[in-house]
Amino acid sequence: MNKLKPLREFIEHQGLSALLIPRTDEFQGEYIAPCSQRLAWLTGFTGSAGFAIISRDKAAFFTDGRYSLQAQQELPSFYERYNISQKSPSQWVLENLSTQDKVGYDPWLFTEAQLKKYERPLVALTPNPIDHLWVDRPSPPQDLMRRHPLKYAGENDESKRARIALTLEADQLLLTSCDSIAWLLNIRGNDVPHVPLVHSICLLRKDHTYDLFVDLRKANDDVMKGLGKSGGRLIEMSQILPHLKTIKGSCQIDPQTLPMILLHTLEQAGIKIIRESDPCLLPKALKNAVELKGAKHAHIQDGIALNRFFEWLYAQPLEGETTELTAAQKLYEFRQEGNLLQDLSFETISGFGPHGAIIHYGVTPESSIPLKREGLYLLDSGGQYLTGTTDVTRTIALGKPTAEQKDRYTRVLKGHIALAQAIFPEGTTGSQLDSLARQFLWQVGCDYDHGTGHGVGSYLSVHEGPQGISKQASAVPLKPGMILSNEPGYYKEGEYGIRIESLVTVIELPHLKGFYGFETLTLVPLDLNLIEDFLLTDQESTWVKQYHERIAQVLSSSVFSSKAIIAYEENFNTFLSK
Amino acid sequence: MNKLKPLREFIEHQGLSALLIPRTDEFQGEYIAPCSQRLAWLTGFTGSAGFAIISRDKAAFFTDGRYSLQAQQELPSFYERYNISQKSPSQWVLENLSTQDKVGYDPWLFTEAQLKKYERPLVALTPNPIDHLWVDRPSPPQDLMRRHPLKYAGENDESKRARIALTLEADQLLLTSCDSIAWLLNIRGNDVPHVPLVHSICLLRKDHTYDLFVDLRKANDDVMKGLGKSGGRLIEMSQILPHLKTIKGSCQIDPQTLPMILLHTLEQAGIKIIRESDPCLLPKALKNAVELKGAKHAHIQDGIALNRFFEWLYAQPLEGETTELTAAQKLYEFRQEGNLLQDLSFETISGFGPHGAIIHYGVTPESSIPLKREGLYLLDSGGQYLTGTTDVTRTIALGKPTAEQKDRYTRVLKGHIALAQAIFPEGTTGSQLDSLARQFLWQVGCDYDHGTGHGVGSYLSVHEGPQGISKQASAVPLKPGMILSNEPGYYKEGEYGIRIESLVTVIELPHLKGFYGFETLTLVPLDLNLIEDFLLTDQESTWVKQYHERIAQVLSSSVFSSKAIIAYEENFNTFLSK
Repeated sequence: MNKLKPLREFIEHQGLSALLIPRTDEFQGEYIAPCSQRLAWLTGFTGSAGFAIISRDKAAFFTDGRYSLQAQQELPSFYERYNISQKSPSQWVLENLSTQDKVGYDPWLFTEAQLKKYERPLVALTPNPIDHLWVDRPSPPQDLMRRHPLKYAGENDESKRARIALTLEADQLLLTSCDSIAWLLNIRGNDVPHVPLVHSICLLRKDHTYDLFVDLRKANDDVMKGLGKSGGRLIEMSQILPHLKTIKGSCQIDPQTLPMILLHTLEQAGIKIIRESDPCLLPKALKNAVELKGAKHAHIQDGIALNRFFEWLYAQPLEGETTELTAAQKLYEFRQEGNLLQDLSFETISGFGPHGAIIHYGVTPESSIPLKREGLYLLDSGGQYLTGTTDVTRTIALGKPTAEQKDRYTRVLKGHIALAQAIFPEGTTGSQLDSLARQFLWQVGCDYDHGTGHGVGSYLSVHEGPQGISKQASAVPLKPGMILSNEPGYYKEGEYGIRIESLVTVIELPHLKGFYGFETLTLVPLDLNLIEDFLLTDQESTWVKQYHERIAQVLSSSVFSSKAIIAYEENFNTFLSK
Repeated sequence: MNKLKPLREFIEHQGLSALLIPRTDEFQGEYIAPCSQRLAWLTGFTGSAGFAIISRDKAAFFTDGRYSLQAQQELPSFYERYNISQKSPSQWVLENLSTQDKVGYDPWLFTEAQLKKYERPLVALTPNPIDHLWVDRPSPPQDLMRRHPLKYAGENDESKRARIALTLEADQLLLTSCDSIAWLLNIRGNDVPHVPLVHSICLLRKDHTYDLFVDLRKANDDVMKGLGKSGGRLIEMSQILPHLKTIKGSCQIDPQTLPMILLHTLEQAGIKIIRESDPCLLPKALKNAVELKGAKHAHIQDGIALNRFFEWLYAQPLEGETTELTAAQKLYEFRQEGNLLQDLSFETISGFGPHGAIIHYGVTPESSIPLKREGLYLLDSGGQYLTGTTDVTRTIALGKPTAEQKDRYTRVLKGHIALAQAIFPEGTTGSQLDSLARQFLWQVGCDYDHGTGHGVGSYLSVHEGPQGISKQASAVPLKPGMILSNEPGYYKEGEYGIRIESLVTVIELPHLKGFYGFETLTLVPLDLNLIEDFLLTDQESTWVKQYHERIAQVLSSSVFSSKAIIAYEENFNTFLSK
């Protein structure tokens, strides 16, 4: 209540009726820096999807099904709590506020699309009123940015800028998606956990030159010179608004990501605005030959780490000393032995027994329980390697599995195999393939409440668009070079969770012109003890056998050895030249 | 050229640059009356999808892939011919006409949605200029309309009108879809081939009363009195425009079907227009218990006719006397022996050998070839019974099939079975299931260029929405009571065609709450000679065996006999009471 009191005084003082407080930052990304955790500071909620509305007499909180339990535990009880799929913040506003009630929002944190639904007078507030009250607010990230070497990127930034500039429908493009900028300019940074991006805004012109707005303390001489040579100008981020008022000609923006304050600034300057979806999305998703080689290399490193981890785990007595948390830490250590590892690609989900049924279980010292010789253990983790981003889930039985657990595991596996082996014509979208992965669960009245596959970046975000495999209709056809996850699952609340996730890449099939298939990148064995053999067809059994043979063969090849710590950096040169 | 000359004089005289000539009539239905075949009169093209643009110096014709061959044969050579998926009429207009060029159109034949794409000045022309030139134009249909008995409809029109009126977002609904009107008012007629509808326009008010605009010569005393009693007023169709100018309050319309002239009339009268999709679509698709019983009854009659037909066909020497055309006629005779048959539900597709590969092959005396003891024969046909509408395709081998034919047939069958046996959660759309039917063809680089399933009416249109199973994304979940076709296929141009089509209905699964499945309605055996046994799983073989057992059991039951001609009318009473 302490924090709400001064906030409500502010609301009253400004003649407002309510304040919208999203979780997101200025860049609409999945991960945000500590200094942007305003929602967590205000409400105590630490999940990755949330939204609060503070009015003069009410406090409402919205999140999705994944986090409803967590919201219950973390939020003070005076918050009204809603599942966002049942009531959205804009619905709440329509029901609780009159058409005269003014609603405050931070125009850096909302896009045009997000604000459209509030049919109330909206008041843009800068600076964000929470920043006045948050006395111990962390400093913004200041780690140095760095150039992503051509050796890993496979295409220099001049070539990328030329390609994107060609597609522009305006004189310039204003880009605020940091992972698009990271891809476009071959830069990386440490501004948020787990995704190597730099908080930045890029203005790309038709002639391929560009202005990059960034906290200049992040740029050392090497970066300054390098970007300067390539036609770029680095400008202090705080200059973005005055600078936008001076640009000439029309400007292309993506209404899904551009902060309202930039849109307003352009509009007030009389600049013609062309709304188009981010032109980097598809080119970024279509990995080039070097990125694909890199992905394979990253998956070999990752496969070695996971194989060593499971070898270690199976050797543990599991009598209390090994917990969800220590297991995750041990896995991190195995991953770190590959010297191209930069970070994990997300917080490891290490869920034993009932915790496995919590789809986005974030293990904490408080929640962590010891692993025992019983039940299932679900481990979802990934690494950020210079060569690529990985994401893998395996579920193993630590004791003797039940018949139901084997049945469900085998149905998840059959769906995983059906997708891995799918062959489909050019033009097919991920949503057309989704039911292949679900069909065997559906046959016994089961399903899973998440997508079957998401796009994955190349040493970038572990969740990227535009492609995906899910129940949601998609207009984006799958194309060779895209990397996606293949991750059906099954969750029995309070008992256990199962998920089998590998990354795949879309490939052409030389013997079937006009048709595509998938190649599985992940090299981590399945738990054969969980497979109910009679449920598998011969073809499915053969797939499992051949998959395990391939893992053994690749990981024991002369270049890589699961026994030794390898100088990956050098060995990628060898790998590339093969 | 004779016909184009006076049309071009008209164009010039009116100061136009071009004229749009669609195939459709005022009601945007699939079948049109002879008096509305303006496109066929002008161009000679008789297919069911076409569009012409006549400009001062050009003549362009657009159709889809199904009819490109036919267009080539039927059209005079001076027509530029386009595949509509590659170039649409509106694209042609943008490329061939300047922004000053005026384009004429008949406002009865276009909807708002259809006209939106032409970015040129449009001039509404009434009457249609072709009607002046078409000297031997047939009279409009004048067959009597009739009431569809409650015994078959299962719900009286008062109840339907009350349900629909409840959903209205305006004071009244202006409905021009004749099959929606036929369903809503329980009326049927003979205004177009194969679909028992009445050309009519209905104005339904919130208090459930209505005005039905129709050619009054079609209404006898019985219909007049019956509709009068139920709160309806029959008004001569020619009064629709003056009548619309007098209505009070707001009016709901479906922009996908309402002719532009009616929209203009409402707008000019200052009536507030609410655009919503046709509120009868979903209720019409959800068959009630009597309609579902009727559908089963219709499929028994249809199954008997087809079983007798195949018995007859297998006994023929096939030495020249039996042709595609005489076979279709023979099948019609078997169907007519069921005395609830009113019509075929579409022109029978009777395609032998290479003709089977023409997806919408319309057999004519000129095209008809004799059936021989070799190759495949594809027979797609259906009946309009008072109890329901049927649609079934079987493909049989008349001689020894090749290994490739057996492989393809078996893959089509595997897809058919996968869909027939699918179990899926509430909320699933047809497009989510489409790949289940295609997956086995895709595995060998094959596919089919049509949807997997369409909705089917209850003694109404053989193609109805809103549901469907296809690659196109759909927002309409499948719901219990819907009837759909399950019809994967494979076509090898110039050689053979394969399609296996049965109708299915969506059912609840008592043992799996929240999940649905399909029940197959069609009772016509498959050709076992075309099945490559080793490609079927045990489960699939069991499905085929059990399906054939069910056909034998149902068709030989005490109520129905495949040997006797049955008084179906009486026996439906028995059937209903079971």
